[in-house]
Amino acid sequence: MKILITGSAGFVGSHLVERFLKEGHTVIGVDNYISGQHQNTALFRAHPRFQFLEADVSLGIPYHDDALDWVLHFASPASPPHYQEFPIETLMVGAQGTQHGLELALKHGAKFFLASTSEVYGDPHVHPQSESYWGHVNPNGLRSCYDEAKRYAEAITMAYHRARGVDTRIIRIFNTYGPRMRADDGRVITNFVHQALRGEALTIYGDGLQTRSFQYVDDLVEGIVRLIGVTYHEPVNLGNPTEFTMLELAAVVREVIDPELTLVYQPAPSDDPQQRKPDIARAQGLLGWTPQVSLRNGLQNLLNSVSESETTSDLKSFLTV
Amino acid sequence: MKILITGSAGFVGSHLVERFLKEGHTVIGVDNYISGQHQNTALFRAHPRFQFLEADVSLGIPYHDDALDWVLHFASPASPPHYQEFPIETLMVGAQGTQHGLELALKHGAKFFLASTSEVYGDPHVHPQSESYWGHVNPNGLRSCYDEAKRYAEAITMAYHRARGVDTRIIRIFNTYGPRMRADDGRVITNFVHQALRGEALTIYGDGLQTRSFQYVDDLVEGIVRLIGVTYHEPVNLGNPTEFTMLELAAVVREVIDPELTLVYQPAPSDDPQQRKPDIARAQGLLGWTPQVSLRNGLQNLLNSVSESETTSDLKSFLTV
Repeated sequence: MKILITGSAGFVGSHLVERFLKEGHTVIGVDNYISGQHQNTALFRAHPRFQFLEADVSLGIPYHDDALDWVLHFASPASPPHYQEFPIETLMVGAQGTQHGLELALKHGAKFFLASTSEVYGDPHVHPQSESYWGHVNPNGLRSCYDEAKRYAEAITMAYHRARGVDTRIIRIFNTYGPRMRADDGRVITNFVHQALRGEALTIYGDGLQTRSFQYVDDLVEGIVRLIGVTYHEPVNLGNPTEFTMLELAAVVREVIDPELTLVYQPAPSDDPQQRKPDIARAQGLLGWTPQVSLRNGLQNLLNSVSESETTSDLKSFLTV
Repeated sequence: MKILITGSAGFVGSHLVERFLKEGHTVIGVDNYISGQHQNTALFRAHPRFQFLEADVSLGIPYHDDALDWVLHFASPASPPHYQEFPIETLMVGAQGTQHGLELALKHGAKFFLASTSEVYGDPHVHPQSESYWGHVNPNGLRSCYDEAKRYAEAITMAYHRARGVDTRIIRIFNTYGPRMRADDGRVITNFVHQALRGEALTIYGDGLQTRSFQYVDDLVEGIVRLIGVTYHEPVNLGNPTEFTMLELAAVVREVIDPELTLVYQPAPSDDPQQRKPDIARAQGLLGWTPQVSLRNGLQNLLNSVSESETTSDLKSFLTV
């Protein structure tokens, strides 16, 4: 297949490029490096079935060949410090970016795959969150540039499906971690690993009792590949339902990296969700999919990637910051 | 002042044009007639302080003069049959259309005023709805092309306020009625009046116990004018908190028009909110505003407009359909 991936230089995007190249497909990566990283493009530069287009997909996708089987829209700043730095760009890649992807798919008769997010559930009142839950999102708060952009992206994806007949998929990605996360993405696992490797205290925001589920990136990629193989248009949660509080996560990080690490407490950011956990019954039933990688093993993989070659390792930067 | 109004040929837009012209301001109207009506532009064509630009604001706002004090963004299909017919255009006018308005305001140092909607509350779990309620909206259902477009519009308006310093206002308009509503807008008051004037049975969707608050358009316009006069960036509800069930509304219509009218029942549409009622404490405190026109008087005004001249009447079309 010929697969175009927006956000190909991002964390998840780059793992998709890798997986699809390994499976023998042709991949066109698109990124403008607003939060993607050049080294994630460099990884595949030499591959004969990889092509890269540097472009801001909010302004258009400069793909002019004929054949195209899939448009996978994974471009977006996705971590709070990035989307807070680029609120308007984040809104645009959810609206104009998604629409450009849909139009490209429409033009080529390709299928369209949207990376949505558990953030559409906001600070949920229902636990765990199934796809039928409508969410609890502040439409104009500080996080709204991301949350509402993704809700809009889902709405326009379904509108193109219903009104234009585009064959679409929507996933809602819950917290995911693994090699090639940006050291400065501000997410809790990155922060903890970063701090731990530098021997610093682990920062807990709020009381540390808010929970998250952490999905290893390989599990996510497997779910994506399986959803591509079926026809299903409603959103599908992809996440690991095993919940940890921030305090429990800190305990695992200390255990794996350094039991001597201490904790330091900071106030919780605005609109920070207190609890989020996927109901994955839909993905289980539809795709026969469940996460396979435990947090302990995933963290170990993440740490192992530090000692690999510079081109495939990303936590390297943690040690050289 | 020099005021640009998108959606100037729409129901609310045309009342704003009228009010601001009466107050001595210069008004630039913009509309593409996707749901606006040519006769609403014709009303003001001859006015020396009125200028009209026919344009789709989702593609850009072709205003090239220097001075501009306000951009009022009221363009959007707003009734279910219209936004269901144009889901992608509705999404675009919420995203690209709002952004073009914000960019125009930014360029001219003008202030920006967003017409948002009570639909951002969706099918609310909190009653009445205050501006601090985050809403209960299906992000990808049939109504999402409108609801999510408006939530996105609020998010990007606040993003331009926070990140670019644009002086913004946001109102959430609850059900509003009055002269110049489209006969085919599918809203309950229009439907009832239409049916009543033709001697047909009044259609009740669902059990008729769902409630709505009905605001006469002059009250809305007064609230808008007052909000323009203060500096306040958070959303402000503008609606009439007096609740009626559909059955009670039907009773008033029968009383005012024809007590002999019968009722006919149809299934409720998808995601139809069961209850919606504004908490207007914010508008009261901030603007000293409360609705002044009772439903009975408003309906009478609406009916009186039928017998006025063709250029100022709109219910005319009801009788000639």
